[in-house]
Amino acid sequence: MARYKLTLEYDGAPFVGWQRQANGLSVQQALEEAVFAACREWVVTRAAGRTDAGVHASGQVVHLDLAKDWAPFRLGEALNALLSPHPIAVLDVERVSENFDARTSARMRHYAYRIVNRRAPLALARARAWRVKRKLDVAAMRQGAECLIGRHDFSTFRDSQCQAASPIRTLDRFEVEQQGDEIEMRISARSFLHRQVRSMVGSLEHVGAGMWSVADLQAALEARDRARCGQVAPAHGLFLVRVDYDEGGEAK
Amino acid sequence: MARYKLTLEYDGAPFVGWQRQANGLSVQQALEEAVFAACREWVVTRAAGRTDAGVHASGQVVHLDLAKDWAPFRLGEALNALLSPHPIAVLDVERVSENFDARTSARMRHYAYRIVNRRAPLALARARAWRVKRKLDVAAMRQGAECLIGRHDFSTFRDSQCQAASPIRTLDRFEVEQQGDEIEMRISARSFLHRQVRSMVGSLEHVGAGMWSVADLQAALEARDRARCGQVAPAHGLFLVRVDYDEGGEAK
Repeated sequence: MARYKLTLEYDGAPFVGWQRQANGLSVQQALEEAVFAACREWVVTRAAGRTDAGVHASGQVVHLDLAKDWAPFRLGEALNALLSPHPIAVLDVERVSENFDARTSARMRHYAYRIVNRRAPLALARARAWRVKRKLDVAAMRQGAECLIGRHDFSTFRDSQCQAASPIRTLDRFEVEQQGDEIEMRISARSFLHRQVRSMVGSLEHVGAGMWSVADLQAALEARDRARCGQVAPAHGLFLVRVDYDEGGEAK
Repeated sequence: MARYKLTLEYDGAPFVGWQRQANGLSVQQALEEAVFAACREWVVTRAAGRTDAGVHASGQVVHLDLAKDWAPFRLGEALNALLSPHPIAVLDVERVSENFDARTSARMRHYAYRIVNRRAPLALARARAWRVKRKLDVAAMRQGAECLIGRHDFSTFRDSQCQAASPIRTLDRFEVEQQGDEIEMRISARSFLHRQVRSMVGSLEHVGAGMWSVADLQAALEARDRARCGQVAPAHGLFLVRVDYDEGGEAK
């Protein structure tokens, strides 16, 4: 038995999300079918981030076990050929130890959220960014983002379906950068609650639009009440960019 | 009669190019049909760049004349609503003088060409960049690009169908920048020959791959012979980014 770590890029638009579901094609199903076609083994893959429908990845990490030994390069080439009908690409394949778990060994997850702040609809970034028509104050959003950094009870920014045992998380980074009419946010933590990034971004949009002050955002966080979340930003602006593991990819 | 200058963004993938053609939908046709639906006037639009099939624009400029006076903002909103089935967005509408001509008044045209230099197929940038598998030497490409800057006879880099009276053009800028596995080229000139940018980029790829030396590129330019062009880079990596006009948009 050999364990493989795969790094994936995908366009989330045509998928029901990472995870297998009865109602449509998931990234997981497309990948597991490609593994079967290449290797004649049905595997269950496990991902660092269970991205929702429409959410993209430029660096999702997945692991899987195969009975037969494969040269990582050959496995990647075979999977890319078989995945070609789908917007999924295998960027990298590595052999890892059996202690490696794409989900639980992850030391840090990095997401990006992209807003285009303009009136005109998106032609080139359609389904790759959230178009916000009203003018956003990026300096205010940056101040709001700073309130969220650190160790907090994020109940306000947690989906009602979230299955995590605790609502406490430590947010290590929340940067807000502007270039022309594009606003890019970079958000990092060891782990996130379900829809936490989109809930935080949606609420920060209220701050940027002047509907909320930074103090309102702070109060919403402190309320630890899902009803106080401003809004959930759309899935298609969100990208899982990178997942960090300890040297050698082993669990601590 | 009032003349309007429109700035457009479009994804070139679904179109046969800017210009109306019998074999499929062009950006021009989609725009002129939207103008008719909004204004009940059939107009003939004229664009700064007659982009080929698959070529994108983030700042194409077009002009058109309408018998009825329209507030520019209202015209833009109406067109965007009517264009929503297509990946075309009107970024800006201005009233301009009748001397303004989107094609002949243009002082400078700015294109970008995007390469992703990696083995893995493109999932997120599919049809938005040229994926080049073999490793490219960006420093060599930059040297090659510098040979092309200035006033030259660009016959080597001109499509056989090109209808321009002279093959002489002045290239003002040809920058090659790298960020991770992305190589972005920025190319500016008052005007270009047909497929000049893609012919130059295709030949520079030969330099980057080590198939050609910088001296080979120089010799190809000096040969003034279409047969010496290395290759034509694919349309889907090319973007018409911006067109500059003199103050007030008037022809010189």
